[in-house]
Amino acid sequence: MDILYFGVDIGGTATKFGAFTAEGVKLAQWEIPTDTAEQGGRILPTVASEIRRYAENDLSRVAGVGVGIPGPVLRNGRVERCVNLHWSNFNPARELSALLGGVPCFAGNDANMAAMGESWQGGGRGAHSVILVTLGTGVGSGIILDGKVIYGAHGLGGEVGHTLCDPDESLPCNCGHIGCLDQIASATGIVRRAERMLAACDTPSALRSLERITARDVFDAAKAGDALAAQVTDICMDFLAKSLSMLSCVIDPELFIIGGGVSKAGAYLIDLVTRHYNEYATLSEQKARIVLAELGNDAGIYGTAKLAIDSAR
Amino acid sequence: MDILYFGVDIGGTATKFGAFTAEGVKLAQWEIPTDTAEQGGRILPTVASEIRRYAENDLSRVAGVGVGIPGPVLRNGRVERCVNLHWSNFNPARELSALLGGVPCFAGNDANMAAMGESWQGGGRGAHSVILVTLGTGVGSGIILDGKVIYGAHGLGGEVGHTLCDPDESLPCNCGHIGCLDQIASATGIVRRAERMLAACDTPSALRSLERITARDVFDAAKAGDALAAQVTDICMDFLAKSLSMLSCVIDPELFIIGGGVSKAGAYLIDLVTRHYNEYATLSEQKARIVLAELGNDAGIYGTAKLAIDSAR
Repeated sequence: MDILYFGVDIGGTATKFGAFTAEGVKLAQWEIPTDTAEQGGRILPTVASEIRRYAENDLSRVAGVGVGIPGPVLRNGRVERCVNLHWSNFNPARELSALLGGVPCFAGNDANMAAMGESWQGGGRGAHSVILVTLGTGVGSGIILDGKVIYGAHGLGGEVGHTLCDPDESLPCNCGHIGCLDQIASATGIVRRAERMLAACDTPSALRSLERITARDVFDAAKAGDALAAQVTDICMDFLAKSLSMLSCVIDPELFIIGGGVSKAGAYLIDLVTRHYNEYATLSEQKARIVLAELGNDAGIYGTAKLAIDSAR
Repeated sequence: MDILYFGVDIGGTATKFGAFTAEGVKLAQWEIPTDTAEQGGRILPTVASEIRRYAENDLSRVAGVGVGIPGPVLRNGRVERCVNLHWSNFNPARELSALLGGVPCFAGNDANMAAMGESWQGGGRGAHSVILVTLGTGVGSGIILDGKVIYGAHGLGGEVGHTLCDPDESLPCNCGHIGCLDQIASATGIVRRAERMLAACDTPSALRSLERITARDVFDAAKAGDALAAQVTDICMDFLAKSLSMLSCVIDPELFIIGGGVSKAGAYLIDLVTRHYNEYATLSEQKARIVLAELGNDAGIYGTAKLAIDSAR
C-alpha cells in the first residue's frame, strides 16, 4: 500500500480534501460542508474521520497531513483567533495529530497555502520565489521564498492586502485603516469604483443597464470596448501594479501569480497589470513576470499537501 | 595558526577590512582608500594584497572572504553595474577568488551585508528575521530572514528606499519615481522638509539662525523643544513608520533596526518612530520592536565576514 499525504483546506463553508502520493501525485479529491457548530469543535474530528475513511482505517499509511485555515497561523502552529471557524487560542495541527494517533500534522494560513500550491504545481512551477495575489471579495496573498512560506514573526507574513495603496480612498478598510490594496483591487473594490464612476458622470456604458454589477461584468464590458469600464479596470489594476512594484523592491520575486475570481478575466487582466507594472518597476532591467494562477480553488489542497510532504520527512 | 575569514566592505572612497575567526571573533580591522582608477581595475588586486599581507602570505589559513559592494549584486554574484566603483558586467567574487589562489569568495550588496552584520552581532543579535533601515544621504536597507539575506530574483531584494511613501512629494527621486522613502526619511529628506517649512511660515525656530542645516541640527533642535523642528522630525518619522508597517504586512520581521547617520538621534528617534508605528501596525497584537543599530560603519565587515563563514563551510 502506498504512503499517503493529505492536503486539507478548511473554509468557513466547505472543507476540501486531497490525497497525494509522496511524489505529489494527486490520487483523489473531495469536499464536505464545514460544520462550525459547537464553537468549531466538530471540524477537526470530521477531518480526522474523513482521513481515516480514505485510508481504510490504516493510519500507518498516512505519513502527514497539512491543513489550511482562513486566518493567521503563528509560526508555532497556534491560531489566536479564527473568526470563520469560531476558534480561539487553539493549535489545530496538534489537535488533529492527537485525533489521528500522532500522525504528523501541520497548519498554515489558507492564502499562504494557496501560494505554496501554485508555486508547486500551478502557475509558479519551477520558480523559487513567487508571490500569489488573489483578487476575490478581498485581496489575499502569500509569499514563497526558496520554496518556503514567509509566515512572519507575528503571523502577518504576506498580508499584502493590507498594505497602503490609495491614500485618497475615503472608506475605511475592514482592518481599520484606509486605502488598503484589499479595498481597491478586489472584486468588491472594482465594483465600488465602477458604481462611483457611473454615478459621477453621464458617459454611456453597458454597465448602466445592469441591476447589480459584478467585477466580471466590468471586465467583460472593458474587453468589449466599453470606455468607462475600461477606465475602471485600468485604474484598479494600475493600483495593483504599483503594489506589485513595491513588492519587487522588498522581496523581488521571480513571478507574481494572480488568482481569485477576478483572474478569470485572463490575458486581458495580465496584459493590463503587466503594462502598468513595467512603468513602475524600473530599478532593474529584468523584471518579474506576471502570470495567471492555474489551480483555482484547489490551490489550497496542493499547498497543504506540499507542507505535509516537506515537513513530515 | 588559526583559520581566518575576512569581511571586506568596498565603498566609493574607502575599503574596510575585518579579520575574523571561524567563531566570529574579530581579530583586527583596518581601512584603506579605495583607488577607483583604471575602471576600478585596481580595487580587487589591492584587496587581495591586503588579505595576503594580513595572512602573512599563507593563503591556506584563509577559509573565506566576503565582499560588500555599493550596488546590486545578482544571486549568481554578478554585478551588472556599480557606478561608484566603475564596474560593469563583472563577477567580483570570482575575480577575487582567482587573485587569491581559489580561496572561496562571496559578494553581496553593502546594505544587505550591513543588515547581516547587525543581525549577527549588532542590534539584531538573537533575532531570526530583521530589517535594517539606514537613514543617511539616502535610505538603505537589507532584509534578513531566518539568518539569510533576501537578495531577490533581480538583485532588488530589500531596496525598501525605493518603495512609494509620499505620493504628494513633487521632486523626482534619483530612481526616476516620485515620493520614495529615500526622498522623505533620509537625512537629505529631513533637511529638505525643514528648509521648505522654514520658507513657508514665520514660526520662530532655532534652525533659522543656521547657515546650513543638517539632519542632526533638526533632531537636536527638536529634542531641545523647538516646535518647528519637532514637526519636521514628526512628519518624516511618521512616513518611515508607515513604511515599516507596510513591511510588517509583507515580511513581518521580529525587529526593525534603524541605522545610518540620522540614527545618532538615538532614543528620541526610536520613540518617535515606535509611537507612529504602533498606530499603523494594528493587524496583530504583538508587534515588531524597533531598535538602534549598534555597529555603525563596521556593520559591513561583520556582515561580509558572516557571509564568508556561512557560505565557505
